[in-house]
Amino acid sequence: MGKGITSRSEDYSQWYNDLVIKADLAEYSAVRGCMVIKPYGYAIWERMQAILDKRFKETGHSNAYFPLFIPKSFFSKEASHVDGFATECAVVTHYRLKNDGNGNIIVDEDAKLEEELIVRPTSETIIWNTYRGWIESYRDLPILVNQWANVVRWEMRTRLFLRTAEFLWQEGHTAHATSEEAVAEAQQMLDVYSEFAEKTLAVPVIRGRKTESERFAGALDTYTIEALMQDGKALQAGTSHFLGQNFAKAFDVKFTSKEGKQEHVWATSWGVSTRLMGALIMAHSDDQGLVLPPKLAPIQVVVVPIFKTDEEKANIDAFVDKLNTELKAQGISVKYDDRDTQRPGFKFAEWELKGVPLRVAIGARDMQNGTVELARRDTQTKDTVEQAGLGARIVALLDEIQDNIFTKALNFRDSHITEVNSYEEFKHVLENKGGFVSCHWDGTPETEKRVKEETKATSRCIPLDFKEEEGVCIFTGKPSKGRVLFAKAY
Amino acid sequence: MGKGITSRSEDYSQWYNDLVIKADLAEYSAVRGCMVIKPYGYAIWERMQAILDKRFKETGHSNAYFPLFIPKSFFSKEASHVDGFATECAVVTHYRLKNDGNGNIIVDEDAKLEEELIVRPTSETIIWNTYRGWIESYRDLPILVNQWANVVRWEMRTRLFLRTAEFLWQEGHTAHATSEEAVAEAQQMLDVYSEFAEKTLAVPVIRGRKTESERFAGALDTYTIEALMQDGKALQAGTSHFLGQNFAKAFDVKFTSKEGKQEHVWATSWGVSTRLMGALIMAHSDDQGLVLPPKLAPIQVVVVPIFKTDEEKANIDAFVDKLNTELKAQGISVKYDDRDTQRPGFKFAEWELKGVPLRVAIGARDMQNGTVELARRDTQTKDTVEQAGLGARIVALLDEIQDNIFTKALNFRDSHITEVNSYEEFKHVLENKGGFVSCHWDGTPETEKRVKEETKATSRCIPLDFKEEEGVCIFTGKPSKGRVLFAKAY
Repeated sequence: MGKGITSRSEDYSQWYNDLVIKADLAEYSAVRGCMVIKPYGYAIWERMQAILDKRFKETGHSNAYFPLFIPKSFFSKEASHVDGFATECAVVTHYRLKNDGNGNIIVDEDAKLEEELIVRPTSETIIWNTYRGWIESYRDLPILVNQWANVVRWEMRTRLFLRTAEFLWQEGHTAHATSEEAVAEAQQMLDVYSEFAEKTLAVPVIRGRKTESERFAGALDTYTIEALMQDGKALQAGTSHFLGQNFAKAFDVKFTSKEGKQEHVWATSWGVSTRLMGALIMAHSDDQGLVLPPKLAPIQVVVVPIFKTDEEKANIDAFVDKLNTELKAQGISVKYDDRDTQRPGFKFAEWELKGVPLRVAIGARDMQNGTVELARRDTQTKDTVEQAGLGARIVALLDEIQDNIFTKALNFRDSHITEVNSYEEFKHVLENKGGFVSCHWDGTPETEKRVKEETKATSRCIPLDFKEEEGVCIFTGKPSKGRVLFAKAY
Repeated sequence: MGKGITSRSEDYSQWYNDLVIKADLAEYSAVRGCMVIKPYGYAIWERMQAILDKRFKETGHSNAYFPLFIPKSFFSKEASHVDGFATECAVVTHYRLKNDGNGNIIVDEDAKLEEELIVRPTSETIIWNTYRGWIESYRDLPILVNQWANVVRWEMRTRLFLRTAEFLWQEGHTAHATSEEAVAEAQQMLDVYSEFAEKTLAVPVIRGRKTESERFAGALDTYTIEALMQDGKALQAGTSHFLGQNFAKAFDVKFTSKEGKQEHVWATSWGVSTRLMGALIMAHSDDQGLVLPPKLAPIQVVVVPIFKTDEEKANIDAFVDKLNTELKAQGISVKYDDRDTQRPGFKFAEWELKGVPLRVAIGARDMQNGTVELARRDTQTKDTVEQAGLGARIVALLDEIQDNIFTKALNFRDSHITEVNSYEEFKHVLENKGGFVSCHWDGTPETEKRVKEETKATSRCIPLDFKEEEGVCIFTGKPSKGRVLFAKAY
């Protein structure tokens, strides 16, 4: 191939790393576990942000910004939250550096903070401490706020996009007068996420609830969307939490109800992160490079001219200029790659690697014949087509490609949900096929723990379309009321 | 007034604080010096971001993201940078918390970092350390990258937006093959900033260069735009730096030129921050509240119905619905404030406080007469106008308001640039009138230092339209080649 990308069959994990690096998406930095998101990778993330942000605003939310730092004492306030998060965090202890006189910069030990500050791993605590000042009466509710921010969790084993010490995300934090309203909000945001995953990322997801042991620290209920990667491992692509009154109680946030009573406020939080970049890459890409759904591709169409003389080039330029104008008017992003430092073959390989959905190649003979060569990234097929009507054809093809990428992922996913009725079968499917395994389970964290230790599979979710069905836990033989999904997961 | 805002004449500084709090722009958080940017304030910042980001992209830049943390040793590498920045910074020393067994969270002393990490005060060092891996030949240049990020400088005296320990900004970092190209880039970005300040913020600015002692740490030349606030103090609203080869040398970033030689890369950096929010507020607002230029106002038009019966309300609703559709089609943001929990007078005061440029009030009699009441925030004038043609009138008025706000600020600024020819005059103007004082100066940092100590005024800039003019330094009597601007500043 010459691109230096390991094939998926040879080493899926290495294929992923190669792709992220070679396609110029991200790289590791000089700081352990922290990544640099390169311009091409960031452009995809910006598309994700723009589309999600629009949906958040359409559903009534506003953005705001809360501090990067959280006083250490805040983590002691919400007991269940403590155990879940306050472990691997970056701790700020000093606020000054000084020159040691030999040109070296050292920490000024005289400038020690009275109370250590934690770099936010998530912002529930600082936000609920702030909401106390914003809420007096039911008239101040609901508060529907989102934040785009960086967060830090000191992960020991990191992978670009999938698990990094610092990552980018959005975190919605809402406050409500009633439990029902908060639950409805948490569910609404799960809808927003699943629609985004399927329509924009072209990644089919299973909507469900987490079991107790997989819930977010401090949540009464965690809703999740679970995607499936090409290696048969699941990836949690977004979560939305019903937090009950836990944070309101921890931070003393009360409101006066219509009836004049003092009550604690109900909460939700919900988030997706740059992890979605990992899901996008692993769901669709192939051994030749990235495959990007048109709705997220920073460049949707690349045009490569093939010419020998300046006159031929001028001819092609004029045609491309018209095509470009037509496509831009329809909101389609086009790159005309007329660099004279690289040959067409090099350009073809580069844009294939970067996942541009459509490639148009035009040579002197094409100009004579009134044709172009049109190549699809998703199917790796080429066609010679008429120049007449090319703009409209491209617009239609981009939709077709978006659909095709989704359908391909959906078929793969659907063929990787396997119902099993014994532990033997469970292990056999996990080892030989992967994907989601649907089985009866006794509902206890102890059994989940044992299964995880023995097979590395975790319960992914209780699907929202869960059907009551009498059965027997395949691990313990105890009674079960329905099937849940297990999988190995990222 | 009933709004609890101190008047400007009484206490300008308190007026500013009151306004930021009462108009729901921002507030202090539980973390010393860190602010919470509230939804209304953040919506203004988002408008700034969107307009600037578009201009950055139009001028060929891409966004990327670099780590929040910088290894301490990086600060020792660029000597002049060290002295300027590596002092008041948040220092991360540990990466884990633990439960002490009594439910208290404490720092795990066993989890100490080998090398301390600094929360970025600015990103030149980590970015140039990264660029080393991106640049081999002249073909890899220029690199035109921008980052939207949070940064931390441990300021001891803080004020909302103007000076906070954490703030939001954008920082552009470009790499070039020649000195000329880098200088041109730094100047281009100054143009982008000054156009943004004048056309969008409606804040007139003086474009200039900083004197040596006011330059950014590590820069060979710092370009600046300087604005004037209503209290006669200057505010640096944006800077663009020509960094020469300083960072390339510190981080060993070389490229092979067309001629096959190894050369160090040339650099620029440029940034504006949430400080612009402070400039916006202090340049235009009055004792009644915010005055927002229409191009930045999250709500450009507020419509308040005045009614007694449901029938009257339904009538008004129908009219507003049509108006709303017409205005939204032109990209104008309209808020229909038909809350039944508040009286019209309360709403008028609230939207005046929040600086909405135009207010439309409609009562039952208006509906009979085919009129509305139209009130301008900038001039505080009201008119009864025909409903027919209202949409077009509003569109035109918003432009007029934008112009008027700018012209008002421009007249104020222009009448506050005073040429002086003696130190006595200099001090007299500073004390009694404020604004920019234009004077001859001997060009030495020593004199600047003395002036600052004696008058608190600093050299703001050497204007780009600087004229050579023989003269005598008003402070030392030494020869001078032209006038520079001094002022007290934020």
